[in-house]
Amino acid sequence: MQETEISTLGEFGLIERLTKGFEPKNASTLLGVGDDCAVIGTGGELCSLVTTDLLLEGIHFDLTYVPLTHLGYKAVVVNLSDVVAMNGTPRQITVSLGISKRFTLEHIEQLYAGIRMACVDYGVDLVGGDTSASVTGLIISITCMGEAKKDDIVYRSGARDTDLICVSGDLGAAYMGLQLLERERVASAGISDFEPDFAGREYLLQRQLKPEARVDVLDELRSLGIRPTAMMDVSDGLSSELLHICKASGVGCRVYEDRIPIDYQTASMAEELNMNLVTAAMNGGEDYELLFTVPLTDHEKVAQMKTAHLIGHITKPDLGAYMITRDDAEIEIRAQGWNAFKQ
Amino acid sequence: MQETEISTLGEFGLIERLTKGFEPKNASTLLGVGDDCAVIGTGGELCSLVTTDLLLEGIHFDLTYVPLTHLGYKAVVVNLSDVVAMNGTPRQITVSLGISKRFTLEHIEQLYAGIRMACVDYGVDLVGGDTSASVTGLIISITCMGEAKKDDIVYRSGARDTDLICVSGDLGAAYMGLQLLERERVASAGISDFEPDFAGREYLLQRQLKPEARVDVLDELRSLGIRPTAMMDVSDGLSSELLHICKASGVGCRVYEDRIPIDYQTASMAEELNMNLVTAAMNGGEDYELLFTVPLTDHEKVAQMKTAHLIGHITKPDLGAYMITRDDAEIEIRAQGWNAFKQ
Repeated sequence: MQETEISTLGEFGLIERLTKGFEPKNASTLLGVGDDCAVIGTGGELCSLVTTDLLLEGIHFDLTYVPLTHLGYKAVVVNLSDVVAMNGTPRQITVSLGISKRFTLEHIEQLYAGIRMACVDYGVDLVGGDTSASVTGLIISITCMGEAKKDDIVYRSGARDTDLICVSGDLGAAYMGLQLLERERVASAGISDFEPDFAGREYLLQRQLKPEARVDVLDELRSLGIRPTAMMDVSDGLSSELLHICKASGVGCRVYEDRIPIDYQTASMAEELNMNLVTAAMNGGEDYELLFTVPLTDHEKVAQMKTAHLIGHITKPDLGAYMITRDDAEIEIRAQGWNAFKQ
Repeated sequence: MQETEISTLGEFGLIERLTKGFEPKNASTLLGVGDDCAVIGTGGELCSLVTTDLLLEGIHFDLTYVPLTHLGYKAVVVNLSDVVAMNGTPRQITVSLGISKRFTLEHIEQLYAGIRMACVDYGVDLVGGDTSASVTGLIISITCMGEAKKDDIVYRSGARDTDLICVSGDLGAAYMGLQLLERERVASAGISDFEPDFAGREYLLQRQLKPEARVDVLDELRSLGIRPTAMMDVSDGLSSELLHICKASGVGCRVYEDRIPIDYQTASMAEELNMNLVTAAMNGGEDYELLFTVPLTDHEKVAQMKTAHLIGHITKPDLGAYMITRDDAEIEIRAQGWNAFKQ
């Protein structure tokens, strides 16, 4: 038998290969694989949105510096963020856990304290799951169900030539938070009373350890009467997500380097670590900000937004996807997002 | 900090402890934790049913004797079975995979061939998932969404005194199939050209490797005009499931040893392995048959059923849960079902 290493395909290549030929057969399946959520019709006015994430110890998180309560919170929020990215309201989650012998009941209760906090903060109900022993490490699989009126759902595929591209909050901070945690972990090796130095970097830690789903951005969009033409959340990095929207919508894009929103702490940390700031902001990932496009005619409304900023515009497909640098050079946007299969 | 080993609670104790205080807040959450599926209202006539299962290599399956295609099929079917057990129709699944380095693309394509086969056989759509590298072993997390009219949903909690208890198919065969596979695996150790001997045991293998969700039982119930008062699927063993129904419904039960349906191959294998046949049938698990109760007045209708048999009746709660043996002794039913935390 032929033996193809999965790392040669990457996550998206693998998914594309495996799901080919799975054509939806049920009338209620309005959208299957390919967006932040699947969309399921219910016969009524509301559609059901479904998304799922698998988080594995040693791949997605390292318990030497991630507190279990934060992990529980984040594991829920990254799912809620996918529902929000479809312009939906998250309602229910299921939580499945695989638990190895080194975890006690008290450990799992800490994890659940974070899960509970996220449920309370976002008004989401825990409705089920599965719990099992695991051979090694902690395994967390969360599925989130949300709802939205059919006409309100925003897909990745709706961006059109001349649309404006916006992103909420700022980018790269979660990635820099991870670098900071990793640096302190290395520095702590062998020192029993090690005190990590996080002074002045609290925002980076918060962004890495306690991300939020940007429900507030949806609220502001609604209050301004803006309906995005396309939207997704930034989990793998802005570059990767821009390319997803361009591919799904059949368009190109231009984003402007000097418009990429970056926090002061992110910039300062990048300088200290001698890392390229724009690379971190474009490819760092785990921002869970909302990337969306709006019609050009909404230009003035977008300018009023407090939660999001204009970073570029959509072009015809043959113009490709490029970032315009501060010195007016065009750099092709490439997905350098995180790939679990290439460690 | 106190350290409580999770094995002291078991799966159900752990779930009860962790989910305490998670009271549903959304009007659409019609039922949360505690049945085969969660039930979510949609505003329309149909409700959405949601269930999820986590399957871990080394805990739930052993790839030395389970072909990947069979594993994929079974991983889907065990989820569909939970929707069927609520009297619902499975419609969509999401599939998340954690894949360690020893698996090639071709391995995962075999797994997906089984997933695809189950989707085709049951008319279910694959609508999403998540795919990641894992540190060790294969991790499969599947969530199934189904639908049912609100009034058609059958819960575990509806059994009433004098109701009749029925079970579909036969019990213990999947467990005996596992014993057979395990015996041949041990016998094969160190023998390169080992030929496993499965002659005359094909049914046991089929029941272990390729279980089915009993949609046909629902069809027969409908055609006879029977509406079960309570129902669930037999995944952890009949004893465990009877106690779930008794607890959820606040009732007791009597089942009759001589009525427990057992296939000839199951009996013959138990004899060969010198195992107690009734224990295997009551506690073996993985049967994925439907256990249900019907009003006493449906006695004649139940007698006509080809897919299910009468095995006992529901009693008042203070009479407890007992099996009546062939020699008229009463043995208390205890859950000896499979517990991943007690290996």
